Amino acid sequence: MKKRSRFWRYFSLTMLVTGLIMLFPGLVHAQDSDESIAQLAQSIDTVWVLIAGFLVFFMQCGFGFLEAGFVRSKNVVNIMAENFLDTTMTTMGFWAAGFGIMFGGGNALFGTEWFFLHGIPTEYAGLPFYAFFFFQFAFSAAASTIASGLMAERTDFRADLIYSFVVGLVIYPVVGHWIWSNDGWLADRGFLDFAGSTVVHLVGALVGLAGTLTLGKRLDKEFGKTTIRGHNIPLAAIGTFVLWLAWFGFNPGSTLGAGDPYSIALIVLNTDFAATTGAIVAIFLSYYHTRMWDVSMAFNGSLAGLVAITAPCAFVTPEAALLIGVIAGVLVYYGVGLMETLKIDDPVGAFPVHGINGIFGTLSVGLFATEGGLFYGGGFDMLGTQALGVVAATLYVFPVSLLMFAAIKRFFILRVPAEVERMGIDGFYHGTMSYPEFTSSYSLPSLEINPIDPSLSDLQAKSSPAGD
Amino acid sequence: MKKRSRFWRYFSLTMLVTGLIMLFPGLVHAQDSDESIAQLAQSIDTVWVLIAGFLVFFMQCGFGFLEAGFVRSKNVVNIMAENFLDTTMTTMGFWAAGFGIMFGGGNALFGTEWFFLHGIPTEYAGLPFYAFFFFQFAFSAAASTIASGLMAERTDFRADLIYSFVVGLVIYPVVGHWIWSNDGWLADRGFLDFAGSTVVHLVGALVGLAGTLTLGKRLDKEFGKTTIRGHNIPLAAIGTFVLWLAWFGFNPGSTLGAGDPYSIALIVLNTDFAATTGAIVAIFLSYYHTRMWDVSMAFNGSLAGLVAITAPCAFVTPEAALLIGVIAGVLVYYGVGLMETLKIDDPVGAFPVHGINGIFGTLSVGLFATEGGLFYGGGFDMLGTQALGVVAATLYVFPVSLLMFAAIKRFFILRVPAEVERMGIDGFYHGTMSYPEFTSSYSLPSLEINPIDPSLSDLQAKSSPAGD
Amino acid sequence: MKKRSRFWRYFSLTMLVTGLIMLFPGLVHAQDSDESIAQLAQSIDTVWVLIAGFLVFFMQCGFGFLEAGFVRSKNVVNIMAENFLDTTMTTMGFWAAGFGIMFGGGNALFGTEWFFLHGIPTEYAGLPFYAFFFFQFAFSAAASTIASGLMAERTDFRADLIYSFVVGLVIYPVVGHWIWSNDGWLADRGFLDFAGSTVVHLVGALVGLAGTLTLGKRLDKEFGKTTIRGHNIPLAAIGTFVLWLAWFGFNPGSTLGAGDPYSIALIVLNTDFAATTGAIVAIFLSYYHTRMWDVSMAFNGSLAGLVAITAPCAFVTPEAALLIGVIAGVLVYYGVGLMETLKIDDPVGAFPVHGINGIFGTLSVGLFATEGGLFYGGGFDMLGTQALGVVAATLYVFPVSLLMFAAIKRFFILRVPAEVERMGIDGFYHGTMSYPEFTSSYSLPSLEINPIDPSLSDLQAKSSPAGD
Repeated sequence: MKKRSRFWRYFSLTMLVTGLIMLFPGLVHAQDSDESIAQLAQSIDTVWVLIAGFLVFFMQCGFGFLEAGFVRSKNVVNIMAENFLDTTMTTMGFWAAGFGIMFGGGNALFGTEWFFLHGIPTEYAGLPFYAFFFFQFAFSAAASTIASGLMAERTDFRADLIYSFVVGLVIYPVVGHWIWSNDGWLADRGFLDFAGSTVVHLVGALVGLAGTLTLGKRLDKEFGKTTIRGHNIPLAAIGTFVLWLAWFGFNPGSTLGAGDPYSIALIVLNTDFAATTGAIVAIFLSYYHTRMWDVSMAFNGSLAGLVAITAPCAFVTPEAALLIGVIAGVLVYYGVGLMETLKIDDPVGAFPVHGINGIFGTLSVGLFATEGGLFYGGGFDMLGTQALGVVAATLYVFPVSLLMFAAIKRFFILRVPAEVERMGIDGFYHGTMSYPEFTSSYSLPSLEINPIDPSLSDLQAKSSPAGD
Repeated sequence: MKKRSRFWRYFSLTMLVTGLIMLFPGLVHAQDSDESIAQLAQSIDTVWVLIAGFLVFFMQCGFGFLEAGFVRSKNVVNIMAENFLDTTMTTMGFWAAGFGIMFGGGNALFGTEWFFLHGIPTEYAGLPFYAFFFFQFAFSAAASTIASGLMAERTDFRADLIYSFVVGLVIYPVVGHWIWSNDGWLADRGFLDFAGSTVVHLVGALVGLAGTLTLGKRLDKEFGKTTIRGHNIPLAAIGTFVLWLAWFGFNPGSTLGAGDPYSIALIVLNTDFAATTGAIVAIFLSYYHTRMWDVSMAFNGSLAGLVAITAPCAFVTPEAALLIGVIAGVLVYYGVGLMETLKIDDPVGAFPVHGINGIFGTLSVGLFATEGGLFYGGGFDMLGTQALGVVAATLYVFPVSLLMFAAIKRFFILRVPAEVERMGIDGFYHGTMSYPEFTSSYSLPSLEINPIDPSLSDLQAKSSPAGD
Repeated sequence: MKKRSRFWRYFSLTMLVTGLIMLFPGLVHAQDSDESIAQLAQSIDTVWVLIAGFLVFFMQCGFGFLEAGFVRSKNVVNIMAENFLDTTMTTMGFWAAGFGIMFGGGNALFGTEWFFLHGIPTEYAGLPFYAFFFFQFAFSAAASTIASGLMAERTDFRADLIYSFVVGLVIYPVVGHWIWSNDGWLADRGFLDFAGSTVVHLVGALVGLAGTLTLGKRLDKEFGKTTIRGHNIPLAAIGTFVLWLAWFGFNPGSTLGAGDPYSIALIVLNTDFAATTGAIVAIFLSYYHTRMWDVSMAFNGSLAGLVAITAPCAFVTPEAALLIGVIAGVLVYYGVGLMETLKIDDPVGAFPVHGINGIFGTLSVGLFATEGGLFYGGGFDMLGTQALGVVAATLYVFPVSLLMFAAIKRFFILRVPAEVERMGIDGFYHGTMSYPEFTSSYSLPSLEINPIDPSLSDLQAKSSPAGD
């Protein structure tokens, strides 16, 4: 019995030790698994946000073609150059200070760190910092590009470079800080703007509105009499298709991760639904009023729906998204008429799309949000907060933009000379026509555009009031 | 000894309890890990299917530009408007009932639930339901857009809106139910159409064939005598490039998940290979017959290869894909001639691309599938089933479409008046020319297109037989 | 006591066995988890690389439109056809032998297996083999497309088909084997070219340089006197936007996996930064020298930045990327002038973009790499290795390309006849004008382009020196 007892003693001891040894790598392994899973999650989050960011970047292409299609051939090179360089100038401004002002720590009004990417952490919101930064500066470029639509066909190219830089540097980021940073005062009050109806679209539209008011109307524009037709409908169509596609990055990418696929799928569907009904309603309204199926109204209607759903896309049902699109289509149709009545020259209809529907989209969160929205029994609290955000953004962006344009006008140059505007900016400022082999109805046969010919440079220098 | 024995007793007990306690969190942890892994898998599946869906959505852009490039400048606004609004109308029809008919439970012929997204579950095929829905309605839009190519340059815009809605509502979904739903009768018989050679392409082509036969040929078309040239080759090129890109969503996205990366990679490669040889064979045939390198044949050849590989892409080897592309290129080249011989006016070559190669692609599964294909020793069973599916889809879609177009013609309007067709649909129905500043050889200088001028509205109203 | 002792014996034994049994599934489960995690990792890697590959494929579209916009309307169909068919011919060459030469095992100079995808493994670099193959052949197509820019407006279409095939078959893959295969001699020496400043861009530019030197200048080109303007700036703009977007696949996709999201994010940011400063610097230089904001310089400047950052994108800081873009912008601006001085006719500026900046980008690794770069205290070793790679690639590609073009010229045909060049390649070789309804300043009204009219075929056959 003694022997047996001893046997059991050693046996149980051996087994226990063995068990513990076996358990130990199991636990270590579980820890390893956890790390692997966390790394995988970060990989998928990063891939998703970056791909969404590529689509947001491609918005520049969309806006470029929409605006190019809607202006006259004599200013197409100019508007393409503006859209192309806008991106780069805004990027520089956003890198220098904008990003820090927007997302850096500081106070409730603006951030005070991370200028020139100085002193940044390795991660933000669980993403590699550079991935977050890339996604955000793709957004910042959209804001100043919206403004270029309202200011088309008469703005000096140098002025465009300057205001794009300033928008990325300080105008867009301050509103962004209020709404999207960790310590923004509007974020604190529960203001919700999921992907930027206010932050991006209303801000861009307000900058542009200040710009067009400072500039005044185009010389050829006669309110209520003639529509100045865009020169190339297929270009405008490419632009719209590309923008719609890009919005599939803009809205669902703002989740900043792929951890909640249900939310992403809802956002994608809502985005598509609002664009769909926006387009249908706007073109049917044009047919109702003019017996013409105005395809540019369909384009602007879909964009209006997209702008409006941008704030509420993660908070509302697909049915609400359809309705938001319907309202956006109505707003954009009559909004275009309103601009005409108010005698504000908006060559591509950017304010009704981004301004009016930026406001409506922001307010629609307070109406349709399934948690807290007025129509879901949430009362007026949320709607009030949303309205406060709209008012606050407007009271900051509009005056500051007026000031900026006044300064550009006073100390530099804002508008091209009348001669240049009449004959087209392309030949005078960019040295080439958009379609040099083809004669448009605006081309003046007596003007030989040849940058190698010194006479043109003389003409250009002569007609440039800055005398450069 | 007794003490020692007691010691071992307590020691072993303590260790066992400790071991069990240590094991317990390990097991709980393992369960947690499982859930994390399942969630991650759903994230990556959703991201993949949604990105593929974005590409499928972008097909609308591709079709729009291909068709715009291949028609004359006087009808470009119209074809862009049709492609743009097609999407939206089909979406509405698919949302209202099409999706429910296609994927809802019901019987072997059609589904009877989920209308207006009513009563849907949270998941389908392991995906968030809305992600699945989005991917599917991007598909539905493709079908009606294909039809617009066959019916180009003479269809009334209102008729286009109506038939697009009906296609999304009931024509496309029924065939889809047979083939892709859980209880479809063709699916039950083992009919295989991986991404829709029949479901999308043949259906769209049959709707369009019924349309062009009901409409009759364009006034200017003289079979065998003149080719009516597309007005803008670069637009057609953009369209083709975009479609080729979009097919990388269309085919591999139909896996509905990223769980089998080997299958996805095979599908991507097969898709590319078939497009490649389709393009090469079609343009070499054009050179062989005409001594001209007809680039529009290269475009249609690549699309023919893409349509043909759509059904078999997941079931065949890359070598078979190359061969399928070769055959598709031959079929599309002679198919275009066949349409001319049969005196069927197909302005963009849509039937040879989507109809003939939709059929060939579906049958090619029965020939080349590595499991069950004729050339792999599978006998004629599979080929027979594939042929049955083609015949069944044709016997449903073609008569129903004829009926639909007859009804539209009888009770509303199908074709624009001759005067509108001759002078171009753009000015009369859409209020703008595609390139208002440029004079094309079809422009009539005596017609001043100005929607503000009431005289035009008179003209348009006068010439519209519906008298609206 | 004895009973109790026995009880403890059995108890401890039972518990141990239970514990072990409980441990076993835990371990099995851990193994299952490992497999699941590994499978998920492969799914995300594959999805990432394939999506990046789709973007790289889309480069063909970008190059096509950039080149189409920069040539004259009489040669647009030709350049679109070349870009479209280039892809397909290079794919065939790469499939036949190029891929095997590049990545197959063999020796330090070239691989000798995997021709026609024969004998391939199921995986490569952890990816499904077909996913790796697809990504790589999307790259191979870019190389030959770059050459078509340098040879635009005078190369016979058949010659283009032949050289594209040869580039994909043997020219591009050999350099690729040296640098990117497991046993390449430059890879062994530590030569670093992350995404192909040398492998893709310098190789393509050298092939094109050999081509343009063999061809001679366009008949209309007078160096230093007139710039032959591109016919369509919006097309060039689309091309540039698409290329910039596509580079977000080209560079970060070259990680071949999503396992290191920090690296991917850095690469994306660096890519964008270099393009940004490249565009700004190049257009400001054009303004400084000509008082014109030359938008085509902005396009080429951004592309120059993208080419330059391609080699170092994973090895340098964002600040270095900004500086690399600045230098690239300077190089491309003066590089265009240098080509003019050297009397080398490069219609789209492809050599300054891809050749000069391909070299600079490769060398910049040796200057700016945070590990081993000259400016980071690494001395001249790395810079020397990078220079060696540039010299080696040049000494192989340039003579072989000269030989190839000499052979094509001697035994077949390289350049179109003078009559065809003057009147435009489109009508003679492709049977259609790019915009058949519109009259450009190059159109000869006396030439009726109608491929059905036999007289044209006569003309074409007569004027073709190959007499086919």
